[in-house]
Amino acid sequence: MMTKRTYNFYAGPATLPLPALKKAKEELLDFKGTGMSLMEISHRSKEYAAVHTEASNLVRKLMNLPEEYKVLWLQGGASSQFYMVPANLQKDDKTMEYVNTGAWSKKAIKEGKFYGDVNVVASSEDKTFSYIPEDIEFSDDAAFAHITGNNTIYGTEYQQWPEVADEVPLACDMSSHIFDKIIDPKKFGVMYAGAQKNIGPAGVTLVIVREDLLDRVPENTPTMQKWKTHAEKDSLFNTGPCWAIYMCKLSLEYLNGLGGVSAIEKINRKKANMLYDLIDTSVGFYKGHAKKDSRSLMNVTFNLPTPELEAKCVAEGLAKGLVGLKGHRSIGGMRASIYNAMPTEGVQALVDFLKEFQENNQ
Amino acid sequence: MMTKRTYNFYAGPATLPLPALKKAKEELLDFKGTGMSLMEISHRSKEYAAVHTEASNLVRKLMNLPEEYKVLWLQGGASSQFYMVPANLQKDDKTMEYVNTGAWSKKAIKEGKFYGDVNVVASSEDKTFSYIPEDIEFSDDAAFAHITGNNTIYGTEYQQWPEVADEVPLACDMSSHIFDKIIDPKKFGVMYAGAQKNIGPAGVTLVIVREDLLDRVPENTPTMQKWKTHAEKDSLFNTGPCWAIYMCKLSLEYLNGLGGVSAIEKINRKKANMLYDLIDTSVGFYKGHAKKDSRSLMNVTFNLPTPELEAKCVAEGLAKGLVGLKGHRSIGGMRASIYNAMPTEGVQALVDFLKEFQENNQ
Repeated sequence: MMTKRTYNFYAGPATLPLPALKKAKEELLDFKGTGMSLMEISHRSKEYAAVHTEASNLVRKLMNLPEEYKVLWLQGGASSQFYMVPANLQKDDKTMEYVNTGAWSKKAIKEGKFYGDVNVVASSEDKTFSYIPEDIEFSDDAAFAHITGNNTIYGTEYQQWPEVADEVPLACDMSSHIFDKIIDPKKFGVMYAGAQKNIGPAGVTLVIVREDLLDRVPENTPTMQKWKTHAEKDSLFNTGPCWAIYMCKLSLEYLNGLGGVSAIEKINRKKANMLYDLIDTSVGFYKGHAKKDSRSLMNVTFNLPTPELEAKCVAEGLAKGLVGLKGHRSIGGMRASIYNAMPTEGVQALVDFLKEFQENNQ
Repeated sequence: MMTKRTYNFYAGPATLPLPALKKAKEELLDFKGTGMSLMEISHRSKEYAAVHTEASNLVRKLMNLPEEYKVLWLQGGASSQFYMVPANLQKDDKTMEYVNTGAWSKKAIKEGKFYGDVNVVASSEDKTFSYIPEDIEFSDDAAFAHITGNNTIYGTEYQQWPEVADEVPLACDMSSHIFDKIIDPKKFGVMYAGAQKNIGPAGVTLVIVREDLLDRVPENTPTMQKWKTHAEKDSLFNTGPCWAIYMCKLSLEYLNGLGGVSAIEKINRKKANMLYDLIDTSVGFYKGHAKKDSRSLMNVTFNLPTPELEAKCVAEGLAKGLVGLKGHRSIGGMRASIYNAMPTEGVQALVDFLKEFQENNQ
């Protein structure tokens, strides 16, 4: 029996690779002949240990991570990293520096302020966050520098990374773009990402930290708030979100099987261009929110001539099995989130639908 | 085709109800006709909202919770509550009071010290935590009182709750005994439990807080560390561990279907007595660790005459499909964790095996 399969453009939780879901279903009641579900086995068992290690190894491989970076699987979402970054990196009362490219940057900035002085060195708030600021300059004596690599709500993404002095670790919220393109990990001190957009299901957060930064954390920090606690125990200090990590492993295997990040990047550029080309050739019917040189590979945001047409378009898309196209309330319009696991066929179906919708409604 | 099914005595992650696992498998690729997995749908969607609400309602029903208690689904395990309890309840530099009944109490006490003065009012460390202290007396002006309701490693469990003054909230780590017997929730200010023993899979923590306590938290506490943040948004302030909450819902439905907590308590007492009777009639071959008046319904701990016999017993049990019987290294011996989802047949199989083992080895 064929299972109905929807094309899911939700901003997150988001679509997962179908082979990963099928494997999870197949193994759900009996994981590798144990007679138990993976959800039931001890996090200290050898069966789970193999999953855990393989998930981390796949991250290392896909990102081409140098040895001095630790891979952590934590809980609490990127929202918890907003305070864990300053809790772990603030030093000698130095100023913490941020770039404000939207709602998630603002949330990170808010939590930084609980830990000391914050300086916002650049912002695109003047134009509804429709671009990534140019010529970002961080101070040489900042405690750390923080950016949001991709902005789901506005559909903007860094095309190049700002420079930081050697002593200033660059922290990046990669929740909505991790593994979407080749990056040089050595540019960053800390990379973190809630899993539910590009890695796996909700409930686990990938944190990658350069080893030398683990010792910065003040002694009087509660145990669970220290990256060091988790790094020293390979994220097994306490019982972790085993199922979510298992799903990440299955999803990363799929990405790896596509040919790794260079292959994924090629597919992602093709998928994004299909939509941006449609927008650019729609003679103003579809109007992209993001400035062209800041366009995201992951979240394509656009408006139609009227809110009524937008609502109609979202509803007709839904009726055709194209789910989750409504834009965020802060900029309205529509948004197609086309993360790594979205197949090209899904984007093609959306393009075909949007073309037809324009013909019928302009 | 029959799936092989092991009897799983792990201390946690632990066995889940088979009907819950079967339902999860059935719905994995297409949740309620959406054409998406539950892992792929937005936490703001109406389909997920129904799951979320039902999980909370089942907790309310099973615990007979008065309206003034809030049900929160958080991340980070009970280990994160060890610091969140003092972060949210410490007040006016008052002393925080704890009872030390084992390894998990000690961890809670350690985190309390990051927030001020801690007083350990009673301890059973003098006898390897083999009992629950009697006549526990908390001060009338403590910031809060904290206990560990059941001690997985030692197999001890409170049979009655210590008294506290009206103004002193009693916080209880219920990770390994929640829903195992009828309790009066009004005895407690805060009840918390990592899900992976008695509620669902690892990756979510149930926290139940009396509403008036939510305002105690200092203003300068990071957003994600405040219970209030999560209470105000019904645990949807940020993306939560949707799959784990869904599995909790399915597991709680199973418990509810058994007849609620009074029925579960009856089953649990029967299961525990089957093992304790065996121990008590084994003429010293099996020797219980816990003092009789402190015995746990959930974790039955015992030793054999020699470590060699213990290792042999664990290995022969494993060969018969009885998994996870090795005791914690701190007291050695054997441990059978028989949480709510362990069927009586599993305990019967274990009893039969242990009888036979004694006959063959004494």
